[in-house]
Amino acid sequence: MATSMVKLMLFSALILLSLQAVVSVTPLHFQHPLDPLTKQEISLVQTIVQNKYPSSSNRLSFHYIGLDEPEKDAILKWESIKPTVITVPRKALAIVIINSQTHEILIDLKARRIVSDNIHSGNGFPTLSVDEQVVAIELPLKYGPFIESVNKRGLNLSEVVCSTFTMGWFGETKDRRTVRVECFMKESSPNIWVRPISGLTMVVDLELMKIVQYHDGGIIPVPTADNTEYRFSHQNPPFGPRQHSLATHQPQGPGFQINGHSISWANWKFHIGFDPRAGIVISLASIYDLEKHKSRRVLYKGYISELFVPYQDPTDDFYYKTFFDAGEFGFGLSTVSLVPNRDCPSNAQFLDTYVHAADGTPLLIKNAICVFEQYGSIMWRHTETGIPNESFEETRTEVNLVVRTVVTVGNYDNIIDWEFKTSGSIKPSIALSGILEIKGVDIKHKSEIKSDQHGILVSANSIGVYHDHFYIYHLDLDIDGVANSFEKTSLKTVRVTDGSSKRKSYWTTEVETAKTENDAKIILGLSPGELSVVNPNKKTSVGNDVGYRLIPAIPAHPLLTDDDYPQIRGAFTNFNVWVTPYNRTEKWAGGLYVDHSHGDDTLAVWTKKNRDINNKDIVLWHVVGIHHVPAQEDFPIMPLLSTAFELRPTNFFERNPVLKTLSPPDVQWPGCPK
Amino acid sequence: MATSMVKLMLFSALILLSLQAVVSVTPLHFQHPLDPLTKQEISLVQTIVQNKYPSSSNRLSFHYIGLDEPEKDAILKWESIKPTVITVPRKALAIVIINSQTHEILIDLKARRIVSDNIHSGNGFPTLSVDEQVVAIELPLKYGPFIESVNKRGLNLSEVVCSTFTMGWFGETKDRRTVRVECFMKESSPNIWVRPISGLTMVVDLELMKIVQYHDGGIIPVPTADNTEYRFSHQNPPFGPRQHSLATHQPQGPGFQINGHSISWANWKFHIGFDPRAGIVISLASIYDLEKHKSRRVLYKGYISELFVPYQDPTDDFYYKTFFDAGEFGFGLSTVSLVPNRDCPSNAQFLDTYVHAADGTPLLIKNAICVFEQYGSIMWRHTETGIPNESFEETRTEVNLVVRTVVTVGNYDNIIDWEFKTSGSIKPSIALSGILEIKGVDIKHKSEIKSDQHGILVSANSIGVYHDHFYIYHLDLDIDGVANSFEKTSLKTVRVTDGSSKRKSYWTTEVETAKTENDAKIILGLSPGELSVVNPNKKTSVGNDVGYRLIPAIPAHPLLTDDDYPQIRGAFTNFNVWVTPYNRTEKWAGGLYVDHSHGDDTLAVWTKKNRDINNKDIVLWHVVGIHHVPAQEDFPIMPLLSTAFELRPTNFFERNPVLKTLSPPDVQWPGCPK
Repeated sequence: MATSMVKLMLFSALILLSLQAVVSVTPLHFQHPLDPLTKQEISLVQTIVQNKYPSSSNRLSFHYIGLDEPEKDAILKWESIKPTVITVPRKALAIVIINSQTHEILIDLKARRIVSDNIHSGNGFPTLSVDEQVVAIELPLKYGPFIESVNKRGLNLSEVVCSTFTMGWFGETKDRRTVRVECFMKESSPNIWVRPISGLTMVVDLELMKIVQYHDGGIIPVPTADNTEYRFSHQNPPFGPRQHSLATHQPQGPGFQINGHSISWANWKFHIGFDPRAGIVISLASIYDLEKHKSRRVLYKGYISELFVPYQDPTDDFYYKTFFDAGEFGFGLSTVSLVPNRDCPSNAQFLDTYVHAADGTPLLIKNAICVFEQYGSIMWRHTETGIPNESFEETRTEVNLVVRTVVTVGNYDNIIDWEFKTSGSIKPSIALSGILEIKGVDIKHKSEIKSDQHGILVSANSIGVYHDHFYIYHLDLDIDGVANSFEKTSLKTVRVTDGSSKRKSYWTTEVETAKTENDAKIILGLSPGELSVVNPNKKTSVGNDVGYRLIPAIPAHPLLTDDDYPQIRGAFTNFNVWVTPYNRTEKWAGGLYVDHSHGDDTLAVWTKKNRDINNKDIVLWHVVGIHHVPAQEDFPIMPLLSTAFELRPTNFFERNPVLKTLSPPDVQWPGCPK
Repeated sequence: MATSMVKLMLFSALILLSLQAVVSVTPLHFQHPLDPLTKQEISLVQTIVQNKYPSSSNRLSFHYIGLDEPEKDAILKWESIKPTVITVPRKALAIVIINSQTHEILIDLKARRIVSDNIHSGNGFPTLSVDEQVVAIELPLKYGPFIESVNKRGLNLSEVVCSTFTMGWFGETKDRRTVRVECFMKESSPNIWVRPISGLTMVVDLELMKIVQYHDGGIIPVPTADNTEYRFSHQNPPFGPRQHSLATHQPQGPGFQINGHSISWANWKFHIGFDPRAGIVISLASIYDLEKHKSRRVLYKGYISELFVPYQDPTDDFYYKTFFDAGEFGFGLSTVSLVPNRDCPSNAQFLDTYVHAADGTPLLIKNAICVFEQYGSIMWRHTETGIPNESFEETRTEVNLVVRTVVTVGNYDNIIDWEFKTSGSIKPSIALSGILEIKGVDIKHKSEIKSDQHGILVSANSIGVYHDHFYIYHLDLDIDGVANSFEKTSLKTVRVTDGSSKRKSYWTTEVETAKTENDAKIILGLSPGELSVVNPNKKTSVGNDVGYRLIPAIPAHPLLTDDDYPQIRGAFTNFNVWVTPYNRTEKWAGGLYVDHSHGDDTLAVWTKKNRDINNKDIVLWHVVGIHHVPAQEDFPIMPLLSTAFELRPTNFFERNPVLKTLSPPDVQWPGCPK
């Protein structure tokens, strides 16, 4: 073995070493005006609010502490200059329930003072705090009638664990901040979600923090723990299927750089924000145009604004289950720590973030976000055999960048990816895993089913209840600038009737620019076509409007009637695509206060104004959905079910933007001859 | 540096070395009754046919030499026993044009004799041979009127290159085997497809091998070569964007095994066949059920039966462009050699295959197929925080297996992937790359466009013409056995009118089993629901029919009128889903003889019999489509545009089949502390 080879291998080992370490970053100070609140800033909000409302004389709980979105023009100005000192005002919004009243407290973090303190008087309540839910789920265990129900069923109270469920709104005129509490058996298996104690109705008033309604509808068997365990440590052989280890080797190191919350990778630059309600927020995504020698704006801001999950069982146990997971439970608050080498591949880097407890204390979420490159198939290729005596092939390999978070709201895990391609596409995707919501029934075999059970018998005594998952993305596209328009390109059949062609028909396109919000309410799938956001003020050299188009996944449409209460609250699902003029306050498609909401602050209501959206700063909203008919494979824990869409440059570039991409060198494995 | 570490690294280097070598396999003898014809077998066919029809006294050309599909019951019997000697008859089908007559010659390869020799007398002609096209494209260069046209345009004849285009059928009653020939300029750039000499009509009779029709419609500028070059070696700086190298490291080696054409990987086993017309064929895919301790059948056979690409320009240059790429040009004949490290990642293994030349000589396609594992995100996960004093997370990483071929028909490259997941899903996907078909126009800027140009101005003088890509998959599913049914699950809104619930509505499911072919003709997207192939003779323990469901991509529907000739020929696109009873002869959805076909041998015609498909051996046909409105980004070579669907187990397993999957050990990079 030659010495040079030992050196080569040593060198290689060092590179590999640098790849292996889990890189996890928790910035102490904000470096960008869109950075999430730091630990210190959250503490500062806590202190300022507590100073005004001392807890000695007030009952207060923090339901939201987040960055108050800076004015967009201030951000764009700051970004174009990038001064060393951030002059954009830094404010926090705190939503605090103080003595049962909801306060919206705006705080200037530099001046360390309250700018405004308003009381919310409309319908709906803030996002629940984790802490109050922790208290609420203990109440049944000391509640006589519940204990009696448990005993009557021969269950062991010490093995009962309860959970809170938001109740929605069904036309009630008086609202109190209440939740339903359901309980489960944890004995023999930690898969509580598939072992409900069905038939009990229990309501907790969160302000009174007591059970205000209780009803035992009769005994329904709790499904057994058999085959519900999913922890590897508790499985018995045979194991399988067997997978071989697989890891990504990047001898030049990762192709991306993380600076605070700012990412640069290949031709992309963007910012990763984080909000206790929205979770991950992608901002200021721009792509470098090799021909124009400059970065061009694509996405000012993108995040999931709401997730509506209506269950389809009208009976007492389930009718109310029409969850708004982002607004009721907080996608940010429900973001989980990612497991290195499992939730993200071994070449991933991680970002930590802070959220807050109900008392305002900052809470660290370690490894909340991961960023990694992955092999992405072929970028483009062609084999040319049509030229006599000359044949060749050209192929470029594609490497993509993925930003990932996982939001676990109770039973379900939502894997939220934002994938960036050097060819200019952004592919947001959603994948579902976790545990089905199960209804206990006195049925062990399908042949015993006599009436609609509102779901699939996925295991003995276990109905996986029908439901939908409707995610709505807020996509504030700024295609090459702020003023944009929304274009609908329809594909229309033309009949040839004049004998001018041997063809009897062909299709062509008709382009229509949406003038107002009503023009931009789209139900996908009814007619063929393309939807684009264009900049009518910028043209390519041959005169096309520069734009990005939406390539949707197969769409899902709501199946509830328009007059049904959950559908009024989730009316943002009425269309798959909406476009609104940018409005700093229109962030939450289901409303700011969505717990017990009446549907009076939704995207469907805002757009009734039918505002002008032509050549304006506009926001595209896209609803991505899955109708979920459960299957036995989803039990006891479900393999990923995913859906994705693509924002793809369409006449944005003069030509293929990766035409002159540098092929990365082939990986030379140490010790291998070239 | 400790000695043990040097050893560790040496060991590691050896493993890496074994990964790096390009593994490429060309089996000499067939080992499986579905193996493609070997080199020797193709030669044998050539010899046998030439013995009967000596070329001294006959003009003959081979248009197809492939395996004559063995009887399905013989294959299934063989597979269940796996005797050491293959007793399944081994036959070849040769389609040979002999003295301008199309012969279907069936040959017993073991007996080395012709079993039958029939003359095709119906409409349509066989797949073109590459060799005759090579001759045809030289004809214009010696054809006076064409030379005159070239001179008139001031073009250099020595830089002209021509190509053949199938002509379709437009109601003519007399058919001859003709093609259109179009020519292009290759000077300054090899991107001939974007530099057409437009306005010329030229027809070649392939039997006479001469130009039988010529018309010069007037001078239209040939688009310049500017910005059309795509070879890296001919690009000028600036280059970019820059990607870092990325390779897959598998310290245990690949998780799959290739034995001849049989693949075993994790819980899957399947066979990779290859046909000169269909290209890659996946057969006998079955998955090991850990609970039942046996392999269970899923897919008897899957391949792309046809690809219909109708262009949408009714003018003389383009009206006839309504290609059937599989039947007219042969997906197998057009399969290209994959470039290691570019078309497939560095951990791929390759299979070679043989096709045939027009004289019957075997032709090797090196690296025709690649097989590799890739990181596939998360398999399933859950973070449990709902149990007081106990929180944990379980995540399984997903590794998938991909089988890839690339079919390049003239300008377009079709990347054809079959992805297998351990969770039981099969995800076939199609991605398009290559070069747009361009029409030259006398327009440099959109503002000059006065009438419908039937496409998008993607560069000066260059219209990217509107068109569709409709792929139809033949999916002979055998879900846990041969007798299957097709189930339509509809999602229906139910109104609550009796006050029994606070809800006003919910949805439920209605399941209908298709009795006959007409029940199974589905236009996707009209109503919500799920489509499954089930085995009504097998139930899960709780009584559900075992099945697989189709999760489609966003569907594309044809936009031509039903009475238009191309649509009559491509009538298999009228529905997105069809189901037929298995019939050994119904392989090609557009007909066996699709060149100049009249549409009298299509899936649409076969299904008019409205045969029984309930609890029978059935075949699912799925049309996957893209309406292609070109964009400047597609020029001069297009980044991948892809679509995919999923066949997903649905009550096939008793529960999540990867519940007890073994997590592969984390990769320990050499020299790193644990």
